[in-house]
Amino acid sequence: MEGASVDNKHKIVVAVDESEESMDALSWCLSNIISHNSTTTLVLLYVKPPPIIYSSLDISAHIFSADVIVAMEKYGADLANKVMQRAEAVFRNFNKNVNVERVIGSGEAQDVICNTVEKLRPDTLVMGSHGYGFLKRALLGSVSENCAKRVKCPVVIVKHPRDE
Amino acid sequence: MEGASVDNKHKIVVAVDESEESMDALSWCLSNIISHNSTTTLVLLYVKPPPIIYSSLDISAHIFSADVIVAMEKYGADLANKVMQRAEAVFRNFNKNVNVERVIGSGEAQDVICNTVEKLRPDTLVMGSHGYGFLKRALLGSVSENCAKRVKCPVVIVKHPRDE
Repeated sequence: MEGASVDNKHKIVVAVDESEESMDALSWCLSNIISHNSTTTLVLLYVKPPPIIYSSLDISAHIFSADVIVAMEKYGADLANKVMQRAEAVFRNFNKNVNVERVIGSGEAQDVICNTVEKLRPDTLVMGSHGYGFLKRALLGSVSENCAKRVKCPVVIVKHPRDE
Repeated sequence: MEGASVDNKHKIVVAVDESEESMDALSWCLSNIISHNSTTTLVLLYVKPPPIIYSSLDISAHIFSADVIVAMEKYGADLANKVMQRAEAVFRNFNKNVNVERVIGSGEAQDVICNTVEKLRPDTLVMGSHGYGFLKRALLGSVSENCAKRVKCPVVIVKHPRDE
């Protein structure tokens, strides 16, 4: 890896979610690692929670009717669209030469992010430091910590200024 | 942080050590976040182990004579110089508009790195994922993990390709 880079094509995955931090991560990426001289593919990755699966013996079957499940899935899809729209609004503020691709995954955030990185082999993964709940983070470590351990490419972890 | 960046001045701290990974981190930084259009101050930070301090009751006083301690300190200084020279050789391969500063600290790596970041307030901290020994890493987490938790600025963690 030592030596001057001659390849100006870059692929960057930015994990986006509902958090301010993930939009900060996208802004950092657009400000810092996407130059006017390079051709960059920016993959916006949003991870929806896993779909609700239950057996006929599961108590959740008595709690959630099919209508409720459909409504929750629609809510998840709407949220994904809103996050993508917000990300694209951030992106439009920067006048950069970028091809944007949108990927919406479903499942455990860190698994989906790591699997996407393994599949797409980007030059860099960019993400906010938290995401996905305080309690889970306290118990299991943050999604970004776990992704940084698992993926092979350089990882950028961005914190929201309010956490300073 | 959302919105177009108009400030083209950047300060980046790159933590360098004897590892290949830290030189990869420097290369990544020079390839990816230092553009030809910006004015960047690149701070190369090397952390020497803490100096040996012992009391008159300490058994180490009987093991290490003053000569040995002087020799070990000279070895530490030589190592710092070698790492800096290697980092500068990597840097020279990239034809970028960069002001380079050298900072050599002494102490626990993660404390020195975090304190330096707090003092210099860079836009970004870049470092290799390991450094500083397998056993310590297994017990305490890696230096990069701990720094990523503690510092407030965006952190880039770079892995050596051989670890893929």
